[in-house]
Amino acid sequence: MATIIPLEQPLKRKNAPALDALTALVAEDVAAVNQLIVQRMESRVQMIPRLAGHIIASGGKRLRPVLTLASALLCGYQGQRHRKLAASVEFIHTATLLHDDVVDASDLRRGNPSANALFGNEASVLVGDFLFSRAFELMVEDGSIDVLRVLSHASAVISEGEVLQLITTNDSATSEQAYLEVVRAKTAELFAAACRIGAIVAGRPASEEEALRTFGLNLGIAFQIVDDVLDYSAEQARLGKTVGDDFREGKVTLPVILAIHRGNEAERAFWKRALDESDQRDGDFSHAQDIIHRHNALRDAIDRARHYGAIARDSLGMFPDSPAKQALLNIVDFTIEREF
Amino acid sequence: MATIIPLEQPLKRKNAPALDALTALVAEDVAAVNQLIVQRMESRVQMIPRLAGHIIASGGKRLRPVLTLASALLCGYQGQRHRKLAASVEFIHTATLLHDDVVDASDLRRGNPSANALFGNEASVLVGDFLFSRAFELMVEDGSIDVLRVLSHASAVISEGEVLQLITTNDSATSEQAYLEVVRAKTAELFAAACRIGAIVAGRPASEEEALRTFGLNLGIAFQIVDDVLDYSAEQARLGKTVGDDFREGKVTLPVILAIHRGNEAERAFWKRALDESDQRDGDFSHAQDIIHRHNALRDAIDRARHYGAIARDSLGMFPDSPAKQALLNIVDFTIEREF
Repeated sequence: MATIIPLEQPLKRKNAPALDALTALVAEDVAAVNQLIVQRMESRVQMIPRLAGHIIASGGKRLRPVLTLASALLCGYQGQRHRKLAASVEFIHTATLLHDDVVDASDLRRGNPSANALFGNEASVLVGDFLFSRAFELMVEDGSIDVLRVLSHASAVISEGEVLQLITTNDSATSEQAYLEVVRAKTAELFAAACRIGAIVAGRPASEEEALRTFGLNLGIAFQIVDDVLDYSAEQARLGKTVGDDFREGKVTLPVILAIHRGNEAERAFWKRALDESDQRDGDFSHAQDIIHRHNALRDAIDRARHYGAIARDSLGMFPDSPAKQALLNIVDFTIEREF
Repeated sequence: MATIIPLEQPLKRKNAPALDALTALVAEDVAAVNQLIVQRMESRVQMIPRLAGHIIASGGKRLRPVLTLASALLCGYQGQRHRKLAASVEFIHTATLLHDDVVDASDLRRGNPSANALFGNEASVLVGDFLFSRAFELMVEDGSIDVLRVLSHASAVISEGEVLQLITTNDSATSEQAYLEVVRAKTAELFAAACRIGAIVAGRPASEEEALRTFGLNLGIAFQIVDDVLDYSAEQARLGKTVGDDFREGKVTLPVILAIHRGNEAERAFWKRALDESDQRDGDFSHAQDIIHRHNALRDAIDRARHYGAIARDSLGMFPDSPAKQALLNIVDFTIEREF
């Protein structure tokens, strides 16, 4: 296995509790959402809850549904509609993960065998479809056409982003702009929708819905950039997933793009061989990490993430201070400075 | 290639024009639906319309959206809402086909290279997701929660059916009942939803919605049984798809189930080797056709299909005579007696 080099500027660990704090604020709702998730992945076809349960159980953070719950809290929402919608958001996310693993042919997800490795690609595709349909059934039960509009659009954009990512994979000439468009579509759009729904259920004015959309979108971009950084940096066990996945799959992420732009001919030839031609040899991942380190590409990628984090933070300016607001602001720091 | 043996009782060809007649009745709507389909599979990601266009162009019959249009006509509907919903039904169907081909690892669809063979499994999974999301966007534009309920439920049932089929594949002990449950879920549920939507947009009473659901469900079961029969009988070129796909993929369909139940020890051992153990040799498909022929399994499977066709026909009894009604009745015959 490749050696793991530290980030140029060590990530702070103090912010890991930020997610716990946010989750604690909406603890009752989170418990209800978890129950809904278990109920709604039921099927007379036993393989469905077995496979869905596998990925949902290993799926840890529940960041997206928690964002829906916390956004609703921020908007002063008192009811329970946000629970079904948060479960719906998590189902869409889970369906995406299942299809992603098939597309990436990943054997591991967060350090555990991925669903496709355990149950086969076929079942992962189909159970993804099932969860996706269940997500829409939950929205239909809620009955809001506005929510359905936001989430059906987000879903279409996510698949566009995934296809776009497929096209940029194995293409070391991918621009930072093309990378950002992939990130925005495949990751940030669902964060944006998750947050926006909080304002919709609370019946808040369009300006607040828009503020939460901006918050989610920029938080999502920051989140994905940091995710891509972690794939070149943190210890596999701590990350909970195999470091170097993106490299092995030929994905052209921000650390690589920065390194390529700043590199010399020999380095560009290396990236071309390893990524474009998928010709990877022993020690290549280590070498990639060395090049990235030399160009400060991880540190500067994190700086890019901080830019989006700042936009996210500012977008909450119109909301009065509250524990929910503070927790959402802290989640931005957590996302950028996390080291798991 | 295997030799093709004719059906024990030759299928009549006179009914092929029935679909043309039905389509002609709603010709203006069909043209509008086709235009909608082309518009709505657009994306800034060019691979999406290219891949989606490939399968939609090769997708010939448009049977499901035509059923929505004709059902609305039967119900006296005068507006245009059914067009978007028919396009939505076709998108759900197309998404299913794309995912099916990935699951089945098919190289051909209706005699043409399948999308996954041309564009790769990854893109087929993701473009399927895209079309599925677009289907929901179209429904959201229409704005009817009733329609959304029917189609989101149908989608969930379809994926359950596909998973169920995965489980029965390579299991020659599959019962006729289990087979029927797969067919009902993976195929008939969308036919039922497609027809039912016609009554919903027309604002007809629940009894008519239920009659059209019954019509679609039973037509769909008959359709799938005949499809499964054709995979063992008609000439590849005429069928437009590779005969023997189901056999090669180890699918346990009605002709096989009947042959197994009526067969001797040696035959059962053959099915076990060829289907359960996927140990297939030269001449096996021919041999399978011979066994099936010997037990009149194709003829009797078609008889089973006729039973469902009869239920479908009777379910239209409450509607007054009209060209739409007659065309829908003819479509039942066409479905069962088709030989393309």
